[in-house]
Amino acid sequence: MTERQRISSGAKWESIVGYSRAVRVGNRIYVTGTTALGANGEIVGIGDAYAQTTQALKNIEAALNRLDAGLEHIVRTRMYVTDISRWEEYGRAHGELRRGTMIDVSHVFF
Amino acid sequence: MTERQRISSGAKWESIVGYSRAVRVGNRIYVTGTTALGANGEIVGIGDAYAQTTQALKNIEAALNRLDAGLEHIVRTRMYVTDISRWEEYGRAHGELRRGTMIDVSHVFF
Amino acid sequence: MTERQRISSGAKWESIVGYSRAVRVGNRIYVTGTTALGANGEIVGIGDAYAQTTQALKNIEAALNRLDAGLEHIVRTRMYVTDISRWEEYGRAHGELRRGTMIDVSHVFF
Repeated sequence: MTERQRISSGAKWESIVGYSRAVRVGNRIYVTGTTALGANGEIVGIGDAYAQTTQALKNIEAALNRLDAGLEHIVRTRMYVTDISRWEEYGRAHGELRRGTMIDVSHVFF
Repeated sequence: MTERQRISSGAKWESIVGYSRAVRVGNRIYVTGTTALGANGEIVGIGDAYAQTTQALKNIEAALNRLDAGLEHIVRTRMYVTDISRWEEYGRAHGELRRGTMIDVSHVFF
Repeated sequence: MTERQRISSGAKWESIVGYSRAVRVGNRIYVTGTTALGANGEIVGIGDAYAQTTQALKNIEAALNRLDAGLEHIVRTRMYVTDISRWEEYGRAHGELRRGTMIDVSHVFF
């Protein structure tokens, strides 16, 4: 079986529900369930869709870095949002990520 | 083109809507649309989120087995749920699956 | 890093939000966010779930063709719908796609 590495988000409920922040299998990485939580477990950017999106993306970057990868390796992102009327804020944060790194991402808004 | 195998869930509407329970392409398997249906088409665990989740996961296992794979090969799961307030029940079923098999899974709740 | 190609849908907001219609990385292609838009930016099949689904699938085919691939290479589709009570219309369009090409697809309705 292909070797795999997983990393934890540090959340207490991880082992209960069978969650990993990210899994690397061979040369593929899956990152999941990333929100606007900051390093100390606080929500970053309450009420600010742009700031929350940026934080969630930083959390993805941190997970990738721990698996010897970076934003430039992303091939797909998928965003689940709570208020689609604020799509420009979500999208702007996502677009800035892309321009900074020249990654080629596709994503879907809900 | 890479060789592929597909398996059926047995549902009558499969050919109408163009659905397969699972597809194997080379060394990758995609399993989809698994619910709490039992072997005879009955819903298992009506009103019991934990039991329904367990059944859905057993159906995934059965699909994998038919393609010469098992739970230990899973790298990602994705759950779509109808009542997020019951996340502990969904999560507990998912976590037990993981502990039993030492698989490294990531998942998302909605 | 594996070579990649991306293609644009032509939408003005693409560069703002960091979107690509499709990305090819090695022998894998990801197509995303395809709706019932026609070649001139108009919505095809207003009020007709079957026609809209067919158009969205044609847009996927066009994206694949631009990356030297076709419907026969699809291994997974995922549909997000606005009115699940019309699943037969969505499903029929999807099923016709499959029968025409013998592709092995799995999909999920919401």
